[in-house]
This record gives sequence, structure tokens and C-alpha cells, in this order.
Amino acid sequence: MTPTHIEHIGIAVKSIEEALPFYENVLGLKCYAIEEVADQKVKTAFFQVGQTKIELLEPTSPDSTIAKFIEKNGGGMHHMAFAVEDVATALKDAEAAGCQLIDKEPRGGAEGLRIGFLHPKSTNRVLTELCGKK
Amino acid sequence: MTPTHIEHIGIAVKSIEEALPFYENVLGLKCYAIEEVADQKVKTAFFQVGQTKIELLEPTSPDSTIAKFIEKNGGGMHHMAFAVEDVATALKDAEAAGCQLIDKEPRGGAEGLRIGFLHPKSTNRVLTELCGKK
Repeated sequence: MTPTHIEHIGIAVKSIEEALPFYENVLGLKCYAIEEVADQKVKTAFFQVGQTKIELLEPTSPDSTIAKFIEKNGGGMHHMAFAVEDVATALKDAEAAGCQLIDKEPRGGAEGLRIGFLHPKSTNRVLTELCGKK
Repeated sequence: MTPTHIEHIGIAVKSIEEALPFYENVLGLKCYAIEEVADQKVKTAFFQVGQTKIELLEPTSPDSTIAKFIEKNGGGMHHMAFAVEDVATALKDAEAAGCQLIDKEPRGGAEGLRIGFLHPKSTNRVLTELCGKK
């Protein structure tokens, strides 16, 4: 596996509306999309900074994993996603190198990308996502 | 302020030696520098992924802020750093936009960069650093 760049950083927030002024007025970034991901029970807001997106994640239900993360930690950086060419192959390579996986096969993510998560037990407690076009 | 990219992601680890195999063998990244930053009581290891560095932070003393973070959270993503042209101006702009600062003036950071931190109270609980050449 050779990731080309950090595709996005996922940040859990209680409220996108309350978080936006920091990103827009202090950092001067522009929110280019807000979308709801029903099956993950989150609303997302995206900003581009160079090669990387910042993805704000607001829970839309108290049983969303993001709601639980906020309950435990108050919010903050939730996961980091690396861009790879081929997620299916990268997941197989990671497993062969001894890494525990959350997703054995890629699934559909935001913006039409294929995604798969590695388990924080194998990644020094950083929830790590792989994203790519296939 | 207009950050050009994410300069680095700081990740707190108990042991760089134990963390390296994930970055090198699973992700296939190459550690290009290990250095000790005495005044912050950490040892750091750097990896480049596209425009962004991953900076592993291992405490070298139990009273380092990284040791306290690990004690509380077990480790994981600690801070995010945005690259800006001029840190002094960016800090002034951030304060003028209502952001609470940790550093009113830039100070010296790793790799000869000027750095300054924004306060997590103003950044939706993400410890945020600005880095630049001046």
C-alpha cells in the first residue's frame, strides 16, 4: 500500500452550525458541501485545504457512533483517511501485514468513494480509513 | 488567513518503536527523521504523505503534556497543524476574528518552522497549530 495523501480528517462536532464560524471566519476556509449520510446517522460538512478535506461530523441520532464519541470525549478529531488507488487491495495488504480490519471489503462512502476502516487496536488508537476510487 | 494545506497531524504514542511497524509495514510510509524536542519533553518521528507530515509524539518525561494526554486518552490524534505563509499575521487575524490563542506570538517549532497554537476552546476541541516560515 502506498497512500498518496491524506484524503480527509474527520472531526466530530455537536453542531455544524456552531462549528462553521471557526472554519469560515477564523481559518478562512469555504464549506463547499453539507450532506446527510443516513446510514451513518450523521450530517457532514466539507472544506478543502490543499490535498486534504476537513469533514465535520454532526450526529443526527443519539445512537450514532459519532454521538457516542462526543458523549465520551466531548468531540474533536475522530478519524484520519488516507487516499489509496485501490481500497480492496490495500485492505488485503493491510491484513496480510498483520493489521486488524473493521471492513474486510470496501463499502460506499461520501462523495462516491470506496472506503474501508482499519481497527484502532492495530493503528495506535487512531481510527484509520482508506479511501479510493475502487 | 488562508492555510495552503495541512502541514502535519500530531499523534501521541506511548512508544515510537512500537508504533513504527504500523506506519512502515502496513501503510508503507518511510520514517525520514527521529528527533528529540527537549523543551517539549517529546521524541518525534516524521513521515511524509503527499503535502502532509505525520508526526508521532512520544513523551520523554511523565510531566510532558503528551504524557498527560496519553494518561487521559490512551493516545491517538493530538493536534492538527495548518500551513500558513506568515504565522505572526495569522495569529493576529485569528484573535481579531474572536479566536482564543495559546500563543500570542510565534515561537520556534520542529524543522526550523515558526509555530503558534490556537486554543481548543475556540476550535471545537481540536488543538490547532499554525506553522510557517515566518
